[in-house]
Amino acid sequence: MYKLRHLFLSRQCSFMAMTSLRLMRLRTQRASFSSSAVKWEGGVSMVQGASRGIGLEFVKQLLEKEKGHVIATCRNPSGATGLLHLKSKFAERLSILQLDVTNESTIEESAKSISEKYGSLNLLINASGILSIPQVLQPETTLRKVEKSSLLLAYEVNAVGPILVIKHMWPLLKDGGGLGTERDVAVVANLSARVGSIGDNRLGGWHSYRASKSALNQLTKNISVEFARRKDPITCILLHPGTVDTDLSRPFQRNVPEDKLFTTEFSVQKLLSIIHNAKSHDNGKFFAWDGQEIPW
Amino acid sequence: MYKLRHLFLSRQCSFMAMTSLRLMRLRTQRASFSSSAVKWEGGVSMVQGASRGIGLEFVKQLLEKEKGHVIATCRNPSGATGLLHLKSKFAERLSILQLDVTNESTIEESAKSISEKYGSLNLLINASGILSIPQVLQPETTLRKVEKSSLLLAYEVNAVGPILVIKHMWPLLKDGGGLGTERDVAVVANLSARVGSIGDNRLGGWHSYRASKSALNQLTKNISVEFARRKDPITCILLHPGTVDTDLSRPFQRNVPEDKLFTTEFSVQKLLSIIHNAKSHDNGKFFAWDGQEIPW
Repeated sequence: MYKLRHLFLSRQCSFMAMTSLRLMRLRTQRASFSSSAVKWEGGVSMVQGASRGIGLEFVKQLLEKEKGHVIATCRNPSGATGLLHLKSKFAERLSILQLDVTNESTIEESAKSISEKYGSLNLLINASGILSIPQVLQPETTLRKVEKSSLLLAYEVNAVGPILVIKHMWPLLKDGGGLGTERDVAVVANLSARVGSIGDNRLGGWHSYRASKSALNQLTKNISVEFARRKDPITCILLHPGTVDTDLSRPFQRNVPEDKLFTTEFSVQKLLSIIHNAKSHDNGKFFAWDGQEIPW
Repeated sequence: MYKLRHLFLSRQCSFMAMTSLRLMRLRTQRASFSSSAVKWEGGVSMVQGASRGIGLEFVKQLLEKEKGHVIATCRNPSGATGLLHLKSKFAERLSILQLDVTNESTIEESAKSISEKYGSLNLLINASGILSIPQVLQPETTLRKVEKSSLLLAYEVNAVGPILVIKHMWPLLKDGGGLGTERDVAVVANLSARVGSIGDNRLGGWHSYRASKSALNQLTKNISVEFARRKDPITCILLHPGTVDTDLSRPFQRNVPEDKLFTTEFSVQKLLSIIHNAKSHDNGKFFAWDGQEIPW
């Protein structure tokens, strides 16, 4: 009952937010931009994979420390308690949309919905990712344990889904650029991982996860090349958040020294600083949480 | 009728070859190695994806220029006219096996068959690969054309299949090492491509192919780390054959300068030289046809 009421309230809030945002949009629309380009104060950010962990923390910090609007997407909004809690505090600035990276039609629906409500995007953070699922996917400790199904699942979630999200959000990011933010460009930030680096691979193991992140790195670089050639005002970067205390890393934290295990707060604060300082010349680069570039 | 007769003859040859090879195996078996380690003069090489193009040329040169035994695998042996022609000339030294990298049971069957006949392997060349299939997979010229189905197909064929082949041939390669060859180690050579390099990506496009080759590069590096840690006498390398005049590259040769378009003969000659000179310290490296290392 509580949940239903909560949901109902949050839908009411959504409706109210939508109405006031439309008015604001009319107020801030500037004739000097193309018909669809709209300036939202502080910009419009989308966090894909926002129900928990790093994605949820991005939404939280974008709302608590900044001025812009945030679109949080996840597979199951009604079960996303963290997001619903934020929605109750930031009703006007937060929209929650259903999006499953393995189902392209939900990505298209989200793009349509964002287009209708905001007309543009200034930041897209792809935070979803898969490392392990009990009884389904386990990071491999040896080649003997590598299975086709695990490899394909990791590719689908980590190295296909985020790319389809960029494909469908591209027109919105192009229209948004840096408008309303302190940047010159829109930013696409894909959550990668240092273990996706081939040059830095000294330990082996985790075949599915590593390979899917290497593929994501290549695809992000590839897209950055096209955006640059077309002179689109979008910078694509890859981010390594460090080892962060989340559900994803929890089963594998045993050998991580305490000072190397970050809170989501710390990691996301560092990553947001990289994102907000991103320039055109950072397009196609792979950064660790401390701003150091990681080799491919 | 011709085909049937041809096939029948080649099966007769296989049988005869098998009988004489078993005798030879008994002759060359040495007590100083583990029970399964067998020394075949010139070694035993497996070429996976051998029905045409670079794979077929590897089989041809291994048979024509060297002494060892060759196992050629392909999806449809009865239609592999190039291999059947070689079989008619090198009946005793060539075995043809059915193997489809998208069907793991055919890989397991091949490993079993090779184990029974030879007991070990000294060289595995993964030459199969997918770039385009009319009406199914077309190298993407823009992000707008990137489809989930194309990405997943490229991953499955280029970045899952060859890894499963290594997984199942691993015990044979470990037993074989450099035995019977002039090398200290067995070699796994995976056909990659310069466009799989992320650091070298300046043109963009070909998303599915590029990403699948980057994933293959990471997985090969990953496996090389495990082999080294276990002190297995196996060196894994990645090879870029150049742009070679084959069915794979034919639709995309328009902008390739004539002197940059290699014959299969030239490219394979160069690649075999890299393979035969491979040492333990080359484990996990990515070489172009001219021996230069390619950045990740």
